[in-house]
Amino acid sequence: MANPLAAYRELGDALRKGTEFKSDSVWKALKALAADSLAYTASCKRKNLISQIKGKGYFAFEKGTRLSRPINEALFVPDTQVVERFFDCIRENAFTALTADELTKACYTVAISFCAAVDLQKSGDQKTPGTFFEYLIGHLFARRIGVNPVKQLEVLNLDMKAKLPTDFIFDLGPKKAKFHVPVKTSTRERVVQVWAHQRVLDGVYGVGRFLGVLVCLSETKMDRASLEVIEICLPDQWQVYQLFIGQLKRIYYLDLPIRYIELNQVFPKIHVLPFGNFFLEANDLAS
Amino acid sequence: MANPLAAYRELGDALRKGTEFKSDSVWKALKALAADSLAYTASCKRKNLISQIKGKGYFAFEKGTRLSRPINEALFVPDTQVVERFFDCIRENAFTALTADELTKACYTVAISFCAAVDLQKSGDQKTPGTFFEYLIGHLFARRIGVNPVKQLEVLNLDMKAKLPTDFIFDLGPKKAKFHVPVKTSTRERVVQVWAHQRVLDGVYGVGRFLGVLVCLSETKMDRASLEVIEICLPDQWQVYQLFIGQLKRIYYLDLPIRYIELNQVFPKIHVLPFGNFFLEANDLAS
Repeated sequence: MANPLAAYRELGDALRKGTEFKSDSVWKALKALAADSLAYTASCKRKNLISQIKGKGYFAFEKGTRLSRPINEALFVPDTQVVERFFDCIRENAFTALTADELTKACYTVAISFCAAVDLQKSGDQKTPGTFFEYLIGHLFARRIGVNPVKQLEVLNLDMKAKLPTDFIFDLGPKKAKFHVPVKTSTRERVVQVWAHQRVLDGVYGVGRFLGVLVCLSETKMDRASLEVIEICLPDQWQVYQLFIGQLKRIYYLDLPIRYIELNQVFPKIHVLPFGNFFLEANDLAS
Repeated sequence: MANPLAAYRELGDALRKGTEFKSDSVWKALKALAADSLAYTASCKRKNLISQIKGKGYFAFEKGTRLSRPINEALFVPDTQVVERFFDCIRENAFTALTADELTKACYTVAISFCAAVDLQKSGDQKTPGTFFEYLIGHLFARRIGVNPVKQLEVLNLDMKAKLPTDFIFDLGPKKAKFHVPVKTSTRERVVQVWAHQRVLDGVYGVGRFLGVLVCLSETKMDRASLEVIEICLPDQWQVYQLFIGQLKRIYYLDLPIRYIELNQVFPKIHVLPFGNFFLEANDLAS
């Protein structure tokens, strides 16, 4: 039987031993992991959830008494050919072969099926899905822009020396863009950390040196008793952070929350887009 | 038998219904709660812990298979007369009758005995100790400076209107100091939120209008298997936050971590002091 968790542990070991995020071996491991996750979830029953989010339907996978996190019906495409085509695009760096929507859906399917498999096998484990999501986004980002990430930066000036632990930093090299890429399965009230770290980078290295790009999975929350699904969004607070702490260049979601779409249209604008768009606009972001 | 949790719930109900933080009825409730917590913990066995912190000894209360959080031997003074004298000082706002050290110890004893009682009655409940600690510090701060706190601020400018949820804000009135007072039982990696909120207040209202004062209980961590106690401290990161995000006026601890003491002596200085000092220097902070 397919066991995505064993494949996940192997991938983690390889990355800790220094295997490069953008390497073919990580690509291969993620592809196998995606196939395992799809096979595993395909063997589980589905349970319809009551979506309180306008225009979105959700279900969960079920195994015994366990229930997975909510899965967006329209974005989940458990078709092995679709997922294989997505991985082919990644290998060849030929993303224009797919539309932004197709890229978002394939990536959502890979991410959420692994997370669901973990939900069904281990109660209350948030760390494994979060770490897997970092591996996946780290690989895709590295592959797309052609450089490997680092996970901490030296904050050096004058007599001071400190290490700032960050999420991913991708450095395109001298006189080129550097990306600050926090990766979260969901943000909730912890999101202010992202803007605060951006502020530190702006302060230490100068405003505009690091482009802040937050990548998230979703903001859904399910009530286990009523099976209702809602999205937890704080658009007003995001605007305050964007105005007064730092400016993020992009916020990408695999399952973009409805209430954040509006932030693209009102001043001060925050660009919150489906993650598929990243693959198509990455060159423009850095230029 | 003394039941501090019942007294805690009553106090929470009263505060939610609008009872003022600085009121005599909150004072009375906290005093009763402190007496209940002391009586409860006095009935529990003590278990020695292995302190890995130089110059500090710790024990835990024990009940059946449950173990409380670590308790600093030198700061814990379970003497009802000492605690009553502390509450008398609060009622009369006569803090100079006690030394900073006596104030810190009495306050530590009240806080940690309630937290320990919760640890022994409810597994994994972090919310109740955290909320109680907010009530306690909120009352003491309000009593000392003579104004009640608010818990959110309107962020108003031009066409924008948003509410910023904060920890306590104490406003001494027009042309006087305003305090921004986050209260945490421990901080760990979430501490950057405190500086980020300070930054937003500085940005919206101008630098220097809000004095940031963080109040914490301790930073101890106990390994349940080995019974070893350590302190988790991030002094380098605090310096980076203080330089690049915002400037906190004070950080007070009831059980001040050893590695933060040094921050008072090196540039850029961060003033990290025992909480007892607050009562004696509060007038100077605001002037």
